[in-house]
Amino acid sequence: MILAPGFTGYPLDRGDEMRDDMRNLDALAGDPRAKLLQLNGLEPVPGPDGGLSWAPLDESPDIASLALLGFDAGRVPHFARLGDPVPGQPAYAVWALLGGLSAPEAAIYAGARSLVDWHMRHRFCANCGHVTQPMRAGWARLCDASAGGCGAEHFPRTDPVVIMLAEHDGRVLLGRQPRFPAGRYSALAGFIEVGESIEDAVIRETYEEAGLRVRRVRYVASQPWPFPSSLMIACIAEAEDDAIRLDEKELEHAKWVDRAGVLASLAGDPDAPFIAPPPIAIAHTLLSWWAAQDS
Amino acid sequence: MILAPGFTGYPLDRGDEMRDDMRNLDALAGDPRAKLLQLNGLEPVPGPDGGLSWAPLDESPDIASLALLGFDAGRVPHFARLGDPVPGQPAYAVWALLGGLSAPEAAIYAGARSLVDWHMRHRFCANCGHVTQPMRAGWARLCDASAGGCGAEHFPRTDPVVIMLAEHDGRVLLGRQPRFPAGRYSALAGFIEVGESIEDAVIRETYEEAGLRVRRVRYVASQPWPFPSSLMIACIAEAEDDAIRLDEKELEHAKWVDRAGVLASLAGDPDAPFIAPPPIAIAHTLLSWWAAQDS
Repeated sequence: MILAPGFTGYPLDRGDEMRDDMRNLDALAGDPRAKLLQLNGLEPVPGPDGGLSWAPLDESPDIASLALLGFDAGRVPHFARLGDPVPGQPAYAVWALLGGLSAPEAAIYAGARSLVDWHMRHRFCANCGHVTQPMRAGWARLCDASAGGCGAEHFPRTDPVVIMLAEHDGRVLLGRQPRFPAGRYSALAGFIEVGESIEDAVIRETYEEAGLRVRRVRYVASQPWPFPSSLMIACIAEAEDDAIRLDEKELEHAKWVDRAGVLASLAGDPDAPFIAPPPIAIAHTLLSWWAAQDS
Repeated sequence: MILAPGFTGYPLDRGDEMRDDMRNLDALAGDPRAKLLQLNGLEPVPGPDGGLSWAPLDESPDIASLALLGFDAGRVPHFARLGDPVPGQPAYAVWALLGGLSAPEAAIYAGARSLVDWHMRHRFCANCGHVTQPMRAGWARLCDASAGGCGAEHFPRTDPVVIMLAEHDGRVLLGRQPRFPAGRYSALAGFIEVGESIEDAVIRETYEEAGLRVRRVRYVASQPWPFPSSLMIACIAEAEDDAIRLDEKELEHAKWVDRAGVLASLAGDPDAPFIAPPPIAIAHTLLSWWAAQDS
């Protein structure tokens, strides 16, 4: 079974080898074919077909204000503009637009959103407090020693998160956070901490959130999640029993669901035991993968 | 095959549920059994048996200067002290001491080192430049709005890295960075970027570093790597051919090695084709796993 979680399959060549050379970047920014992703703050500006929209670059753009997203098959450079936070922006307006994005567009948007957002929230040096500047074509920031800074380089964050199904006797455990829409249940999840492997984190988080001991953790799939910049790592594990003890700060309810129930929920059956997470979420991929396994 | 990469299997209960309540933390710091990990900057102070060493807490310790590492089976609280960077500290003196640490001690040390190091290098708010303070028992920092900050909370970084074997016709590709000890080769590796899945990153990094197209990426194992705070994600993938085009900024050499060569290298045979990475590195785990597969 080939898994293609949402936001994966970034279609551009990221052009890492071009990022360090300002002469290369100036040439790219002067390419008349160059394209600039149209964003309103962090939200996509939809084109007439509902997909992403792109505009030509200004003449003589300030290369330091651009992030190089990469090159398409015709070597056309694609950029996003780095800017200041937009006050009062509607949060997550993107959700209404995601249905209009193709899978490759969703992947480009995910990378661009995380990168632009990281710059907005990391304008100062965590090491010394000095103001920093973008470098490496938007893929790092420098605390410039020649301008009074400490010389530290900072790189965009990617926060790994485990998201997992605990399995017991042909059923999987699903939980409900208070902020979820009515009826929604999903896989349990949590950030991987320093000093942990993926497997360690699955075991710890399942115990913390549901009081359940699991073993035999297996990796299933991964996806970038641009809210703001997680790497979702989907796993399955065997629960030693089915007695749940909820952490009520994290989950308002949890329940065991069998294959028929998962399949009905994924199919949108109104009598299904829960409302499934949307297809772009890796929890949906994970549930689909599990439901397709031999029992 | 059960894989137990180095630094995994943290033996303490991290006690996440205790981190938010200052009264709990004061009580823990007042526990006469409480233990403080002995560090010299970021390096372990070895005990008489060569393992980690622990001391009682001071009387009336400043709880804000402590990080709660967790609880052992007897519910004894274990702490590390958060401090300032130590100028002139010998870098990576830990390597000479790692052989004296048991696997659970190595895991505790990995978590403690990454956490203490993160605090040292993140004393200021990346969002506004204001000085920040530890919170959540050392598991976050607060940019205190009541002290003129912006109110942002900051969490320790964990940077996911892919490390991978490209396989072709019964051989795997190993590379050599200029900084490696003489004779050492290892798996290719690189940071996962925003907008990438694990699989996307394996494909991109193998192409960037070796000019090799790979497919069918499979996850093998993971480990925390505390230099300073990576999550190493080990994978294997199929190379479409064996023609290498090196990125000479990253690698000074790369070569294909068959199973017999990998086994000889792991065994320390002086005639082996390369010197293997040390057992605590997940590259060693990955090579051992691959060498044990049916060809």
